[in-house]
Amino acid sequence: MSTFRSWFAIPRGSHFSLANIPFGIISTAKSETPRVAVAIGDHALDLEAFAANNGFNALSTIQPHQSVFSEPTLNAFAALGRPLHAVVRKYIQSVFAEDTPYPDVLKNNSALQKDVLLPLKDVKTHLPMRIGDYTDFFAGMTHAFNAGCLFRDPKNALQPNYKHLPVGYHGRASSVVVSGTPIRRPNGQILLDPKAETKVPIYSSCKKLDIELELGAFVCKSNKQGEPLPIGEAEDSLFGVVLMNDWSARDIQAWEYVPLGPFNAKNFGTTISPWVVLADALAPFKVKGLENDTEILPYLQQKDEKNVYDIQLKVDLKSISGNASTITQTSGRHLLWSFPQMMAHHTITGCPLQVGDLIGSGTISGPTSAEYGSLLEQTQNGKSSITIAGGEERRFLEDGDEVTITGVCGSDEDALVGFGQCVGRIEPALKFAFAL
Amino acid sequence: MSTFRSWFAIPRGSHFSLANIPFGIISTAKSETPRVAVAIGDHALDLEAFAANNGFNALSTIQPHQSVFSEPTLNAFAALGRPLHAVVRKYIQSVFAEDTPYPDVLKNNSALQKDVLLPLKDVKTHLPMRIGDYTDFFAGMTHAFNAGCLFRDPKNALQPNYKHLPVGYHGRASSVVVSGTPIRRPNGQILLDPKAETKVPIYSSCKKLDIELELGAFVCKSNKQGEPLPIGEAEDSLFGVVLMNDWSARDIQAWEYVPLGPFNAKNFGTTISPWVVLADALAPFKVKGLENDTEILPYLQQKDEKNVYDIQLKVDLKSISGNASTITQTSGRHLLWSFPQMMAHHTITGCPLQVGDLIGSGTISGPTSAEYGSLLEQTQNGKSSITIAGGEERRFLEDGDEVTITGVCGSDEDALVGFGQCVGRIEPALKFAFAL
Repeated sequence: MSTFRSWFAIPRGSHFSLANIPFGIISTAKSETPRVAVAIGDHALDLEAFAANNGFNALSTIQPHQSVFSEPTLNAFAALGRPLHAVVRKYIQSVFAEDTPYPDVLKNNSALQKDVLLPLKDVKTHLPMRIGDYTDFFAGMTHAFNAGCLFRDPKNALQPNYKHLPVGYHGRASSVVVSGTPIRRPNGQILLDPKAETKVPIYSSCKKLDIELELGAFVCKSNKQGEPLPIGEAEDSLFGVVLMNDWSARDIQAWEYVPLGPFNAKNFGTTISPWVVLADALAPFKVKGLENDTEILPYLQQKDEKNVYDIQLKVDLKSISGNASTITQTSGRHLLWSFPQMMAHHTITGCPLQVGDLIGSGTISGPTSAEYGSLLEQTQNGKSSITIAGGEERRFLEDGDEVTITGVCGSDEDALVGFGQCVGRIEPALKFAFAL
Repeated sequence: MSTFRSWFAIPRGSHFSLANIPFGIISTAKSETPRVAVAIGDHALDLEAFAANNGFNALSTIQPHQSVFSEPTLNAFAALGRPLHAVVRKYIQSVFAEDTPYPDVLKNNSALQKDVLLPLKDVKTHLPMRIGDYTDFFAGMTHAFNAGCLFRDPKNALQPNYKHLPVGYHGRASSVVVSGTPIRRPNGQILLDPKAETKVPIYSSCKKLDIELELGAFVCKSNKQGEPLPIGEAEDSLFGVVLMNDWSARDIQAWEYVPLGPFNAKNFGTTISPWVVLADALAPFKVKGLENDTEILPYLQQKDEKNVYDIQLKVDLKSISGNASTITQTSGRHLLWSFPQMMAHHTITGCPLQVGDLIGSGTISGPTSAEYGSLLEQTQNGKSSITIAGGEERRFLEDGDEVTITGVCGSDEDALVGFGQCVGRIEPALKFAFAL
């Protein structure tokens, strides 16, 4: 029997069991001001209202900080640091426990339950953090290898630096959106015939619109400029994790990316799931990542071999006709580098990470094609197609396609630690008139 | 005789003539809260104090917005839009004009002069904007060509995309600092022998620390995600310009940059000058940039051929022994792409620019080696050296070196439009112990 039994009705199989307690930003029709909540079963616990109604009275350590729950982002809560996140999470777990030591707080107070426990279906979720900088890594080694084979050859698929450092690049923070936000197919420059002697691009809507299945980590502790974050302390800066779809325009990317890397191909939208699963909630699901056969420098060596998460990841694609299929099933374990390693490398030069920064894992692909985290890999850059329900074929995304990423840890149906969904639907490209 | 004569003593040759009126953020020993000011001659006009003392009473359009002058960044002022920037700038010019129509505001009010006109030497300047995203372009074609020759060969120095689109990449916003902030030499991974069969990097302080002479533009108008900024409207989003030194670790860069572009090599510090010169102040100095012999797509075509600025740029290097030399003299005209073209390209996919975003031009190099904007180019990646005063030689920067960029437009010594200085001094690398 699960140790996470609750007096409150949490459906079996819910991503938001008592073992989880993920944090997010919500608003409702009745109260449109965004504020902090946690997800529990099919409900959101409105922490602003809970705090205002003495919900945290038993928790003296959090009382001076209760205003963080009225903020429109999680940044202030994140900045309190992991020890306080743990205190709040454990307290909420104990308030909801079947044998709660605080029965009068909520269990025996049905009036307050009505006020602070809001059905998720009635709640609007918002971008959980005010993101300063967004950095995207490339730690999914199978993806890096597959992409390298497509653009170079199997012998040179991985660059010489790949196993020595977590390759990454700075992404675009302003276009990160919360799950449910439509994604417009981008326009840009593409080269129709890459083999032509004279290379002349055309202006076009993207014809190779793709997904990238990733995990995103949020930073909860800043380091000073000039002062690297030692890898032994990097875990303290890890607030929590979300699912991420780093939408990619492959044809725009192929033309633009030399010599400074992807730019327009990635700057039109990145979707993240709304509930930040705290690092503490994920800790029981740590596993060893991909084997690195290269000796890495000491600043990247982690004491604990278990440094990535066994999150069961799934990508579903639903066409405009309603045909839906799972196109990818894989795990968060298929990473060569962990988030603490990425943070240690990011800051080794003295680069300051700040509370609210978002760090992407890079596309996660497992070893077989049913586990590939992008259509680029599944269709060999459009050379073949995949078939979804109704016999529909896809090389890349079509207008109206809805892509849903889900992720969940654990097998005990009463104690799952899940992320809910990360959804985006493709809208047709804008017919853009050039006003000269 | 200049049309910009003032009753106030503005030294001849000042960068901050009445023709300029650049905006910045200041604090003083007496009043440590950062606030908005403009630079005039050797003084800063404290706009918070000026507004509080009825300085803007004659200006009904600005009165509802006066709180922007009490902000710790220029973002709120920038967001008012270019028409209001013009109103404020012209009004300040008229208040300081010899034949001012508002003599009682300041000219005949010596008590207020003492309160609001602060000697620049007593003023601390701060980062002028709260930067959301920072994007660095690569529009200095001579630099791009020189770098391409060093890393490839003259025939393939410029990639096929170079003349079709402004190549750029996302930079690191959190490490942008204001002039005067010391820059610590970064540590990182470098490959001592790039030609070795087996490529094994070492952990080391950067041995090839370099400058990049750039201009930075700030954005004052947001576009909605999914809605590109037409090039004909892009100029409206250009708040103003600063000098920029995009410090670069060439050895870290050479090892890390494939395939996703520079990352650690650029994320440890970017210095900008403190005073934002408004786009209106620069408008008289527009010139035609570098000739593009390629036909560009309509979304990048600007009506006006004069789209870059003839800013006389200079880089001085002073060693720890005090030996100082000018190492670069060039002009802002040596760009293939203008800021409006960069913004139109940046947003063609629908990427949202936001007020406060910083856009770098890329390194500006003129045609001769005395005009190269980086040591990489001047020393052929360290193959040769340059000699500065005292016979000191430099391949790259040494600890204690102080680099000063200056920039100024015009030749009328009473009506210069200048940027002041963009200064940074190199501190020794941190001896970083690996706490495992």
